[in-house]
Amino acid sequence: MARTIDLNSDLGESYGPWQMGDDAALLRVVTSANIACGAHASDPETMFRTLTLARDQGVVAGAHPGFADREGFGRRLIPHTMGEVERLVATQVGALMGAAALVGTKVRFVKTHGALGNWAAAEPDVAAAVARAVKAISPDLAMLAISGTALDRAGRDAGLPTFSEIFADRGYLSNGQLVPRSRPDAMLHDPEEAATRLIQFLETGLMPVVDGAPIKLDAVSVCVHGDSPGAVAMAQHIRRRLGEAGITVAPFLSQP
Amino acid sequence: MARTIDLNSDLGESYGPWQMGDDAALLRVVTSANIACGAHASDPETMFRTLTLARDQGVVAGAHPGFADREGFGRRLIPHTMGEVERLVATQVGALMGAAALVGTKVRFVKTHGALGNWAAAEPDVAAAVARAVKAISPDLAMLAISGTALDRAGRDAGLPTFSEIFADRGYLSNGQLVPRSRPDAMLHDPEEAATRLIQFLETGLMPVVDGAPIKLDAVSVCVHGDSPGAVAMAQHIRRRLGEAGITVAPFLSQP
Amino acid sequence: MARTIDLNSDLGESYGPWQMGDDAALLRVVTSANIACGAHASDPETMFRTLTLARDQGVVAGAHPGFADREGFGRRLIPHTMGEVERLVATQVGALMGAAALVGTKVRFVKTHGALGNWAAAEPDVAAAVARAVKAISPDLAMLAISGTALDRAGRDAGLPTFSEIFADRGYLSNGQLVPRSRPDAMLHDPEEAATRLIQFLETGLMPVVDGAPIKLDAVSVCVHGDSPGAVAMAQHIRRRLGEAGITVAPFLSQP
Amino acid sequence: MARTIDLNSDLGESYGPWQMGDDAALLRVVTSANIACGAHASDPETMFRTLTLARDQGVVAGAHPGFADREGFGRRLIPHTMGEVERLVATQVGALMGAAALVGTKVRFVKTHGALGNWAAAEPDVAAAVARAVKAISPDLAMLAISGTALDRAGRDAGLPTFSEIFADRGYLSNGQLVPRSRPDAMLHDPEEAATRLIQFLETGLMPVVDGAPIKLDAVSVCVHGDSPGAVAMAQHIRRRLGEAGITVAPFLSQP
Repeated sequence: MARTIDLNSDLGESYGPWQMGDDAALLRVVTSANIACGAHASDPETMFRTLTLARDQGVVAGAHPGFADREGFGRRLIPHTMGEVERLVATQVGALMGAAALVGTKVRFVKTHGALGNWAAAEPDVAAAVARAVKAISPDLAMLAISGTALDRAGRDAGLPTFSEIFADRGYLSNGQLVPRSRPDAMLHDPEEAATRLIQFLETGLMPVVDGAPIKLDAVSVCVHGDSPGAVAMAQHIRRRLGEAGITVAPFLSQP
Repeated sequence: MARTIDLNSDLGESYGPWQMGDDAALLRVVTSANIACGAHASDPETMFRTLTLARDQGVVAGAHPGFADREGFGRRLIPHTMGEVERLVATQVGALMGAAALVGTKVRFVKTHGALGNWAAAEPDVAAAVARAVKAISPDLAMLAISGTALDRAGRDAGLPTFSEIFADRGYLSNGQLVPRSRPDAMLHDPEEAATRLIQFLETGLMPVVDGAPIKLDAVSVCVHGDSPGAVAMAQHIRRRLGEAGITVAPFLSQP
Repeated sequence: MARTIDLNSDLGESYGPWQMGDDAALLRVVTSANIACGAHASDPETMFRTLTLARDQGVVAGAHPGFADREGFGRRLIPHTMGEVERLVATQVGALMGAAALVGTKVRFVKTHGALGNWAAAEPDVAAAVARAVKAISPDLAMLAISGTALDRAGRDAGLPTFSEIFADRGYLSNGQLVPRSRPDAMLHDPEEAATRLIQFLETGLMPVVDGAPIKLDAVSVCVHGDSPGAVAMAQHIRRRLGEAGITVAPFLSQP
Repeated sequence: MARTIDLNSDLGESYGPWQMGDDAALLRVVTSANIACGAHASDPETMFRTLTLARDQGVVAGAHPGFADREGFGRRLIPHTMGEVERLVATQVGALMGAAALVGTKVRFVKTHGALGNWAAAEPDVAAAVARAVKAISPDLAMLAISGTALDRAGRDAGLPTFSEIFADRGYLSNGQLVPRSRPDAMLHDPEEAATRLIQFLETGLMPVVDGAPIKLDAVSVCVHGDSPGAVAMAQHIRRRLGEAGITVAPFLSQP
């Protein structure tokens, strides 16, 4: 089984004078960073600062585009045509690439954010629009998506290097879907429980679920969160326990 | 003397439902387009639409970054550190490059907008910050600047391909500066007068000024405006008169 | 039958350097102005300028709140809780009242804009949230709504002075609904046809529909548009023809 | 000497998903709240939430208008005409009043924020524009300003109820001005030192300064900060020590 895994997290989601999460702490834990691009969060200063921190920690940088909706933090589904989705994604990835040029680093992959991410996971047309935007910028850009989603398929169909992720802190159903957030077992709150489940998955390839026998899931990366003190502590705990279990934590993309 | 000249104009300065100028008309007149990047004006849709029109007309696309100040249209000087200027420029140029990738065209040069442009023209530190941002993105990106300004020098000092422009509708002083806007002779309002002056400059290399004998100016491009019906008519008249005078109107950068 | 009618229009929808429609022309035609409040359009300068023009023309000023979505011009349905709708409406009406205080005029009524308006017309909960916000600001503020909608009912249920409007340029169905925009007969494009239909309605109380016999409709105001040269011309034509037909055009609210 | 004093603080400066400071903690310390109005910070939800907390704690609510510059948090001086200053202030105060109507509370005073506040303190024209905006909304609205500034004079000249404040954590010069932020003695970092100085001032009417004998200052309110954990702790310490010294902490405006 996989003895190497990537840890990814959403980062660079501060804005102007406002801080979101503890990026410096999380960038010592993760190996890939999904960095906001100035639409649902961030601004030129935040992009530059986050890319600089990522580079200094050897963390691989990806773009994390979302709806241009700061007040809703990109979590509200705002109607867009497929063409509008393409332009939204392409300009955000481009903006982050501009900041990366200043830092002397590269944007290596794209992972969609929030409501845009959920929409692209569910709707093949949206997923294809995202994939077209990414491929137009560069066919070498990778896509990071949840295994089995429309976005995952669209990335592969477009010939993009496409990688699958799982969530460290979300419950799974036996059909491979996440437990809906409305249910009490949607989230794992205990760091040790999350670490144990993850190690079991990495050692067996089978993910424990809330409603049956463990299921086969495909993943080269694990998404951890950092938007609360508890989330950072959980990420740190998972990283430490992975090390103790002899599992190497390394980027899913090799360093440039 | 130069029998070939470029015409450039600020374009793509609409925003959401709001139109600015008649881009379609102006893109049939000019050969280079300074395209707003979503900060003082524009958004992903406007960038894409303008780049598409430019490509279809064979107009060379440049980025036109400005302060992130829509209400002030980038015309108010907002305090920025030199690092902030770099990030402002780099992320805007990057965003436009993202849209250009979708269109299948290239961003070939950068010309700063409004208060940022005036600041970079006057202050060597600001000019150097702009040049650093442009060069970091690509040393092949050209700079378009007013001859003799700090920005013009900074572009050349940075080793960037740097090109000089003059204004079709602004009066000049014998020291090479523009007549301040507060003076009644700051602007040329008559299309024929503007065309005649421009042709005289192109045929002699000497620009008529309001306060003395014509002066030597360096220019490969002429800036025309399009933000009013009168401005479009002037641009169209100048283009026609240049043709009648046997002067070729062509981009200052060769097509990609 | 009613020999007096109000004409209302959406106004003050410019933003920063961008103009929308010809407010000065339209304010010579209408008797009530639905003035944008800085969210889907407008800014402090535009609010002030529009309120000043309205005051000078004796036009009654109303607030026209919408979603905080400039790029989508408030036409995209963005998820909001009912509490969020209340706050959205109350702060926008308040902002316009602040500008009105400077002008020395009053905001007399509220008419919701775009996607917020459509949502409030269809959903009783949304309509009630809008009515609560209006009433909290002042029980003397009137509501302007389409007859028979949820918003119309919510205004009356809240005890607010509530007034009904019809559209000069939209086709009606025999069930009282507007012809959907997807149909070719959704819009009346001919000014004379629109004027004739309106006069027939005002003289008989019965509105011609596209699919049967004229129906009874309730209206003290007619909405005209001004966002295109053709729209302004239609509004002017309707005003002239109403005068010729001996119908008085006057605000639905008396002057303060 | 004054045995009663008000404590005020800037509050409600969160935005969308981003938190600024610990408003709930600070609202248990202060008696007057300068609440951001959606321009340099805040949004309809934040205004409503902050006004609700203030009402529940018996804290008097004031408006805290600033430049419409979220990325710069209202701390960058952006050129405005005097008319623009009026509209900026009036619409922001109005927006907060709209939210206050929903909460069932009142906006009782205005204190300008950041770069707008500094500009109004220094320039009589700007100060007069602020005062005109406040008075146009209501001559009963109070102004809170630093003693001896242009804004303080403009409020009194306009006939507005005008009140003076001092800073708990800023050093003073013998000319009554604040020690410039560039100097090491600009800020008091030790809560006990700040409390002791304040009590000495309240008991004698004379403020210790960094460069001479204590000076006479006029103040009915003391500004404390809450934008860092240390700031909240200092505010809490000051409040406690004032109580121990037998000084009543109460709003400078009586409750409505």
